[in-house]
Amino acid sequence: MVLAFMPFLAANWLYILAGILCFVTARLTIAPSYVSALRTGKQRRVYLNPDQAAELPDEDADCPEDGDDGPAPSLPADLEHVPLDFERLSEEEMAARARDFYSVMDRRRTVRAFSSDPVPMAVIEDLVRTAGTAPSGAHTEPWTYVVVSTDDLKEQVREIVEQEELINYTQRMGDQWTTDLKPLRTNWEKAYLTDAPHLIMVFKQQYSLKEDGSRRNHYYNELSVAIASGILITAIHYAGLVTLTSTPLNCGPALRALLGRPANEKLTLLLPVGYPAPDATVPDLRRKPLDEILVRL
Amino acid sequence: MVLAFMPFLAANWLYILAGILCFVTARLTIAPSYVSALRTGKQRRVYLNPDQAAELPDEDADCPEDGDDGPAPSLPADLEHVPLDFERLSEEEMAARARDFYSVMDRRRTVRAFSSDPVPMAVIEDLVRTAGTAPSGAHTEPWTYVVVSTDDLKEQVREIVEQEELINYTQRMGDQWTTDLKPLRTNWEKAYLTDAPHLIMVFKQQYSLKEDGSRRNHYYNELSVAIASGILITAIHYAGLVTLTSTPLNCGPALRALLGRPANEKLTLLLPVGYPAPDATVPDLRRKPLDEILVRL
Repeated sequence: MVLAFMPFLAANWLYILAGILCFVTARLTIAPSYVSALRTGKQRRVYLNPDQAAELPDEDADCPEDGDDGPAPSLPADLEHVPLDFERLSEEEMAARARDFYSVMDRRRTVRAFSSDPVPMAVIEDLVRTAGTAPSGAHTEPWTYVVVSTDDLKEQVREIVEQEELINYTQRMGDQWTTDLKPLRTNWEKAYLTDAPHLIMVFKQQYSLKEDGSRRNHYYNELSVAIASGILITAIHYAGLVTLTSTPLNCGPALRALLGRPANEKLTLLLPVGYPAPDATVPDLRRKPLDEILVRL
Repeated sequence: MVLAFMPFLAANWLYILAGILCFVTARLTIAPSYVSALRTGKQRRVYLNPDQAAELPDEDADCPEDGDDGPAPSLPADLEHVPLDFERLSEEEMAARARDFYSVMDRRRTVRAFSSDPVPMAVIEDLVRTAGTAPSGAHTEPWTYVVVSTDDLKEQVREIVEQEELINYTQRMGDQWTTDLKPLRTNWEKAYLTDAPHLIMVFKQQYSLKEDGSRRNHYYNELSVAIASGILITAIHYAGLVTLTSTPLNCGPALRALLGRPANEKLTLLLPVGYPAPDATVPDLRRKPLDEILVRL
């Protein structure tokens, strides 16, 4: 008998079996969110890597509010539909415009060294107006553009960002990430935050409040704001200015507090806007050729 | 004695205690992702709401690979930096270009009724080239543009999307969401998928494979692809064409399979591109005025 060689097992197998059964039952029945709440509850703050930070599901973002007296549409229910105002270009003109626009955009580069030469606020306003033409989920327009232009406030933004970035670079980002960034010569020092005449801080609104105080859900708010930012970056370049597409990791809450933004808003991007420093350099990057990014089917 | 009234408990309390201890241990030690894998393994598919689908954390996306022999940068470590090629415009010209570009973009509308008139593939190629000029995290360029232009494949795309959208509208989206969409007159029927001459399917690459088979992480891939899509939408409009920014909810895996895309790619957007139908109408929407989206500090 095998059991004769395992007296402990022989004497106690019923206890062990009961234990195993309950362990397996726990594994199969437990709610993952409960465990995760137990675990994260112990830490004061959870630091996120960028894709987690950028793509964190918005809590409650898609729960229709309880206690609603039946849903009412956020846009007028009887919204009129009108003929599209459209002027059709000739095929030649279309092809020429597509090609010209590509030539313009292909000259865009991300710039890290800014001149402090002023840029009129009226220009910045037109750039933000242009961003505001972006499409958005159910036309919720879930964006706020905070333009910081005073030296004092830019200094405070820089302090917050550099403090976090130092920790990001030395502790949070890990060897692979910081190594991947080395050829681009980025580090935790962010002189552009005080050099550039304007900082455009792009906030996504995860929801808005209706007149009765209930929440209006902003469908696809992260995606909508990022698409709008693509249009903004295009407008900045088209006007002959430069920017740097930055995502201050873990700075969102501090910057939101500094700028006095409400709880439904989260910082998505920080874009310094201005002229490049006279001696600005850029990494000698190549873009992928068309055949590496396009598949024709 | 209390136990005298509970003969079963008295006789078996050791088994019960062992069971409780193991159950509690399991609750406290178990990895949530393991439980969730166990649970979802039973269901064929998990349906997500749009913000979950759009913002789902990319598993493994930010884990530097184990077994690496110390990190090597993805770009050449000795990448040269060169002077920025920049031509400074006069302040008047800058202001005029910012204003002109706003006027152009302000005429953009999302269109749902397409003409089937052909659009040359060379134009589509220039539009995709333009999207390819977008900035991306650590210059990873994490995008693939699949252009579907044959009737047969468009028909199959439409079948997949309409099948899911019918379930989305009737079961998954909920009253509030479908009510919010009513003024826009969208529904589960997607004639534009076969009417438009081209469908641009935008895939984000969550990682790529290095020569040694290990993964190269694509930082901020969702954000980068959405910004690039903003540039693409701008280019489409600038060329005199129209599109519809759509996010086929829960269709990603089926469309990825249909189009033969690899496991590191996920569908982010589906953009039909072409001319509007002659009788195309649009909802008579207003955009938020500047003061509602801009804060000057």
